[in-house]
Amino acid sequence: MGQPQQPDRTAAKKPLLRIGMVGYAFMGAAHSQGWRTVSRVFDLPRQPVLAVICGRDETAVRAAADRHGWATAETDWRALIARDDVDLVDICTPGDSHAEIALAALAAGKHVLCEKPLANTVEEAEMMASAAESAYKRGQLTMVGFNYRRAPASALARQMVAEGRIGTLRHVRASYLQDWLVDPQAPLSWRLRKELAGSGSLGDLGAHIVDLAQYLAGEPLAGVSALTETFIRERPLVDASRGLGANSADGTGQVTVDDATLFIARFTSGALASFEATRYATGRKNALRIELNGEHGSLAFDLERLNELWYHDGTEPSTHAGFRRILVTEPDHPYLDAWWPPGHGLGYEHTFVHQARDLVHAIAGGRTPEPSFADGLQVQRVLAAVEESAERNCAYTTIAG
Amino acid sequence: MGQPQQPDRTAAKKPLLRIGMVGYAFMGAAHSQGWRTVSRVFDLPRQPVLAVICGRDETAVRAAADRHGWATAETDWRALIARDDVDLVDICTPGDSHAEIALAALAAGKHVLCEKPLANTVEEAEMMASAAESAYKRGQLTMVGFNYRRAPASALARQMVAEGRIGTLRHVRASYLQDWLVDPQAPLSWRLRKELAGSGSLGDLGAHIVDLAQYLAGEPLAGVSALTETFIRERPLVDASRGLGANSADGTGQVTVDDATLFIARFTSGALASFEATRYATGRKNALRIELNGEHGSLAFDLERLNELWYHDGTEPSTHAGFRRILVTEPDHPYLDAWWPPGHGLGYEHTFVHQARDLVHAIAGGRTPEPSFADGLQVQRVLAAVEESAERNCAYTTIAG
Amino acid sequence: MGQPQQPDRTAAKKPLLRIGMVGYAFMGAAHSQGWRTVSRVFDLPRQPVLAVICGRDETAVRAAADRHGWATAETDWRALIARDDVDLVDICTPGDSHAEIALAALAAGKHVLCEKPLANTVEEAEMMASAAESAYKRGQLTMVGFNYRRAPASALARQMVAEGRIGTLRHVRASYLQDWLVDPQAPLSWRLRKELAGSGSLGDLGAHIVDLAQYLAGEPLAGVSALTETFIRERPLVDASRGLGANSADGTGQVTVDDATLFIARFTSGALASFEATRYATGRKNALRIELNGEHGSLAFDLERLNELWYHDGTEPSTHAGFRRILVTEPDHPYLDAWWPPGHGLGYEHTFVHQARDLVHAIAGGRTPEPSFADGLQVQRVLAAVEESAERNCAYTTIAG
Amino acid sequence: MGQPQQPDRTAAKKPLLRIGMVGYAFMGAAHSQGWRTVSRVFDLPRQPVLAVICGRDETAVRAAADRHGWATAETDWRALIARDDVDLVDICTPGDSHAEIALAALAAGKHVLCEKPLANTVEEAEMMASAAESAYKRGQLTMVGFNYRRAPASALARQMVAEGRIGTLRHVRASYLQDWLVDPQAPLSWRLRKELAGSGSLGDLGAHIVDLAQYLAGEPLAGVSALTETFIRERPLVDASRGLGANSADGTGQVTVDDATLFIARFTSGALASFEATRYATGRKNALRIELNGEHGSLAFDLERLNELWYHDGTEPSTHAGFRRILVTEPDHPYLDAWWPPGHGLGYEHTFVHQARDLVHAIAGGRTPEPSFADGLQVQRVLAAVEESAERNCAYTTIAG
Repeated sequence: MGQPQQPDRTAAKKPLLRIGMVGYAFMGAAHSQGWRTVSRVFDLPRQPVLAVICGRDETAVRAAADRHGWATAETDWRALIARDDVDLVDICTPGDSHAEIALAALAAGKHVLCEKPLANTVEEAEMMASAAESAYKRGQLTMVGFNYRRAPASALARQMVAEGRIGTLRHVRASYLQDWLVDPQAPLSWRLRKELAGSGSLGDLGAHIVDLAQYLAGEPLAGVSALTETFIRERPLVDASRGLGANSADGTGQVTVDDATLFIARFTSGALASFEATRYATGRKNALRIELNGEHGSLAFDLERLNELWYHDGTEPSTHAGFRRILVTEPDHPYLDAWWPPGHGLGYEHTFVHQARDLVHAIAGGRTPEPSFADGLQVQRVLAAVEESAERNCAYTTIAG
Repeated sequence: MGQPQQPDRTAAKKPLLRIGMVGYAFMGAAHSQGWRTVSRVFDLPRQPVLAVICGRDETAVRAAADRHGWATAETDWRALIARDDVDLVDICTPGDSHAEIALAALAAGKHVLCEKPLANTVEEAEMMASAAESAYKRGQLTMVGFNYRRAPASALARQMVAEGRIGTLRHVRASYLQDWLVDPQAPLSWRLRKELAGSGSLGDLGAHIVDLAQYLAGEPLAGVSALTETFIRERPLVDASRGLGANSADGTGQVTVDDATLFIARFTSGALASFEATRYATGRKNALRIELNGEHGSLAFDLERLNELWYHDGTEPSTHAGFRRILVTEPDHPYLDAWWPPGHGLGYEHTFVHQARDLVHAIAGGRTPEPSFADGLQVQRVLAAVEESAERNCAYTTIAG
Repeated sequence: MGQPQQPDRTAAKKPLLRIGMVGYAFMGAAHSQGWRTVSRVFDLPRQPVLAVICGRDETAVRAAADRHGWATAETDWRALIARDDVDLVDICTPGDSHAEIALAALAAGKHVLCEKPLANTVEEAEMMASAAESAYKRGQLTMVGFNYRRAPASALARQMVAEGRIGTLRHVRASYLQDWLVDPQAPLSWRLRKELAGSGSLGDLGAHIVDLAQYLAGEPLAGVSALTETFIRERPLVDASRGLGANSADGTGQVTVDDATLFIARFTSGALASFEATRYATGRKNALRIELNGEHGSLAFDLERLNELWYHDGTEPSTHAGFRRILVTEPDHPYLDAWWPPGHGLGYEHTFVHQARDLVHAIAGGRTPEPSFADGLQVQRVLAAVEESAERNCAYTTIAG
Repeated sequence: MGQPQQPDRTAAKKPLLRIGMVGYAFMGAAHSQGWRTVSRVFDLPRQPVLAVICGRDETAVRAAADRHGWATAETDWRALIARDDVDLVDICTPGDSHAEIALAALAAGKHVLCEKPLANTVEEAEMMASAAESAYKRGQLTMVGFNYRRAPASALARQMVAEGRIGTLRHVRASYLQDWLVDPQAPLSWRLRKELAGSGSLGDLGAHIVDLAQYLAGEPLAGVSALTETFIRERPLVDASRGLGANSADGTGQVTVDDATLFIARFTSGALASFEATRYATGRKNALRIELNGEHGSLAFDLERLNELWYHDGTEPSTHAGFRRILVTEPDHPYLDAWWPPGHGLGYEHTFVHQARDLVHAIAGGRTPEPSFADGLQVQRVLAAVEESAERNCAYTTIAG
């Protein structure tokens, strides 16, 4: 003893899974935390290695590499993809570059994890799903980063729905409420420009609740009727937003995406659903809420209290029935046997650790992880139907299948 | 002392307000409780007298009179209206008879309180509102029984909106969830037949949240896009429902109203709104919930916790801001100076006491109470637009004004 | 039809139960509401009649009679007791007069309902319990007004404990938090003087949680260790408090009761308990909270949300276990079959309606109602042990039995 | 680019802080997570290095080193302390070894972080605090691991108390409820034997709430009155517990620590407090709850919802006042500027990241971190007074100062 040991010595005997991540902003930080932590907590069949991170600004990307623990850095994502020492490309860039990077990575024989939404258009998403299908035959796996499926409480909800605990589904109501645009003086940013962000509340927040609703329900949406609104159409330009739809003289720029999106929908089974995504719900910070009502029970989840799942067992005698707060921290809850004792809750970032865990297992096992690019395409089709309905004065619009 | 006193002796010096109530089921019991209690709690300019109750079954109506404290009983509402000793007709029957009774009562010179929804059709409601307007010129007052405006918490919410505390309105989300039809074996009743009930979840539950949303927002809805569904289309007939859409042989009858109604909407100001009314939300018993988000703050109310109003003051520094639970039981809260000390909550039935209080004051003061028949008509127009949109495949349907 | 009917005609065929109530302040109003309403809601074996109300100020008591619906008024409680047309004496005065009035009423052959706490001293309570025992042999019944036993949620909790649902009891934690004295400028009142109120937080709030804890546990406390404190020892005198412990010159008077009382305790079974009663818990208005933990489950109740009972079933698999919110508004819940549909909650005052109901049934059935004067005496002994422990530097003090 | 980079390259320019950790069970895993993550999230003046981990079982400790990312392993803590390449000794062993290890580490010139409780006796704690004081003069820093001070919500609460937002303190009520011993068949473990664990619920759970109460109040407790109980006195022996107080024949062993501890207390300012620590609160998994009531406001925290702080501002008009839920995830909240956007909550383990952050800053700045060994000693004195009071039949026992 007393001699320096290599970290992850036993892990070193496992096959490596060398990761190249493109993008290093909010999502890059979150994915890094997931990759760094996953093998410290879970027993994995392959050992993830934070091999290379990529960003356009060399100084910034080197700082990010140091900060987040990546061994090397690149400034061109094509160079990253070209490297032999990368097994998996993890795409954390804005949506307008997802398709190009993912298609190139798949062509280069890499596994791909792509942040949500899969793409900015259905066409791009179709190409990606198609490429993923072909790549699968060559042994490459793909996944889209709808991380909220991997909060233990939502995973437990899915498990309970699949077990039949709520019976025939009648209603899903989902909302994702934030408030960071409620101030009219909040500046214009790339997130408010359609050419970069694809959409506003819809792709950013709506995509999450569409995916989560379909995942929990275990079935796709069939059609939607939608309203969208942009409450504040001009916002101040700041240095970071110069050039973004600038007006001639007054220092403001045009907002070209939706501030809020509401839609009602039918599932293929006939269950009804409602969705709301907004950045104008004053006081609601990250309030992703979803409730399912079935013939035999109900389930409710709120991301602001992510360690809790509320469950009503409708088969109990009414005398003692009620919505119960399951504190999803027991060893027999999803992912929890690897973490802390009961009652010691997890946080937002753990969803990325769980995503990493499940992806490593899927790659090692050669089976398609969920959500696949096909799942991501399906969400994209819902978003497209929402946009189409909103443009057609709320006309009910069926989801292309 | 020691001699028997007449009850309400001092009150006897006040002008009486003699009430004739038509109907004695659930709503009749609730209104009776309101009329009996109001002068025990509030100082009123006129003294309500429970003069006469009316129902078709003589034995039953006499029993109801005894039970609920009405001095006399009638079996024909026309006889009730013809009586000289009735000042106010309180209509607690199902919606299909509202128009006929109200029009006759107004023609007979009575004040009228009519349960919600005002009528089963816009046409009826228009006649009623028109008659009410004429009657007002003759000194007769009319009110529609949207009692949930008179929970202290919702009245406080209205007051806070009117004071500008939430600023420019962005979102309203309202739902009214019950679960009494979730069992497919729950029997057919008149509430499930269109010819009697007018509609299902829409008129029963949806009417409440439409009224409350417009009341709290202080502005009308401009247009809607709607979905409705009837999940269970045939239900067992029981003795009480024989004759209701009976199928030939199998002991079941047709459900001809909506089980659930979802719609999204725009207010005239441009704010967005969503509504859901259902009888299939397992575990939700009487969950009327409404939240308003404005530029400066938010308010949220849940009827299952009716003594509470949640308020977010968006002008506070973010360090200390949060949704606060106002326990609406302080002497300076609406209606509360007459009740119990802080923290000693009220219940559902108190909304009827408050409704009675406000109506008596309005009649004594000769000013139109809120909600007026015109308000009831406006709600009816929203309901009609919802039905039209649902029939037109969710097409956005403007509210006739 | 069309002829005036006597109210309560069918009820008139029942034997009457003629009530004489002494006191007409807060508790008088609450009891009046209970007596007025009970026969409108419940089917009763005897018909309560609000026969006579008593108070020292003739003008005020006559106004109270009118307001609250009492047929006659008296200014001397001895005259009330002497009346032949009174079957039940309902004592709503401050605690220093309970014993004298109750003993006289029992001597005069009346049934007696006495507000809590039963008396200001153990000695008085012993005399009252002894007299009640003798009177019971003569067919007279007695009850003490611990109304919180009769919130449907607490009654359900008792029922569930009695059914063995939580198993061997381990812990009870009870607190009753108010905040009306937190302002040092709140004036002196009779409630802050020992000679009138007996004690402060202890008798006013502590008595409620001691009774409720023993009732729910189904067993008595065995011993206590207690701390009390008077945070503000001098308060401004106002007109209403002139003469109350006035200081010589500065316009203030002495507070001679406890502001807050904390104690820990053992039940006879060995379960542990903690209690806190205070008027200094800023923001807590009427927060009576009690939780029981047993080997097989737990129950929790909060008076500020009095329609809810929280239940944890410890025998469920941990995967799906959690505290559930039972909305205590179902027809099979205590008292609820007579009220409104599920989810339509009750309020504070309904506890007095239920108290009246249960007392009428007990009198008609000739069986001792709960809580009896003996129960009230037992609570008094706990309060005395608390005071003794506090005086003896927290020494563990057994409850005299 | 494209060349392998050393991780933490910029960090490498900082002075290192080489950590040697003793113990690798639950707390070892939590501390490891803290040390591994802290420099990825926060900008630190020194770079923590996971240099060496120590445990008695060589195979196990090597596995732990690999799992948790420690460079080397030792099987004798004395060897760890003797190493030149260790700057800080992090003690994560059971309490019976804290004193010996800490004293040796201080003698060897190391900084020391010691898990709570500081020791199993006041005598040990005094020696440790004394040694820490001497070591401080030599530039060595010490800290005790009361990690719950470093949940952002509790840190915010402390900040708000220090700002005077709740004014003169009146009440603190604290409880720490778990339920893992409620099953009588749960086996005996070292945690249930006094010679190893020192105490049961008191040292394990009570120590946390005593520290947190004093920290938040900003003042020490002055005296206590306490009850303790061991509900189940014999428990089954399992392999892991052979030799632990074995009974002769029946396969059970003696429980020699407290199952539950209740105490009431006075702060030096005269404020009152209550405490409860138990492992028998069925359904409560990790329910550390604390509420402070002051003259101007109140604060409440629940570890099961650790991203929330409840605040009542008593200076607001009563019309709009209420307990507000501050979601403690804003950039201006303690520690939060380094983490995720608003509403993206943290978990239990983040308290260890924050503890690591604060300790690194303190060491780099040469100032004593909080809580110091002196703070840990003070907690130990409270625990001793609790034990003494419980032995003396709850007699009020002053805290030695």
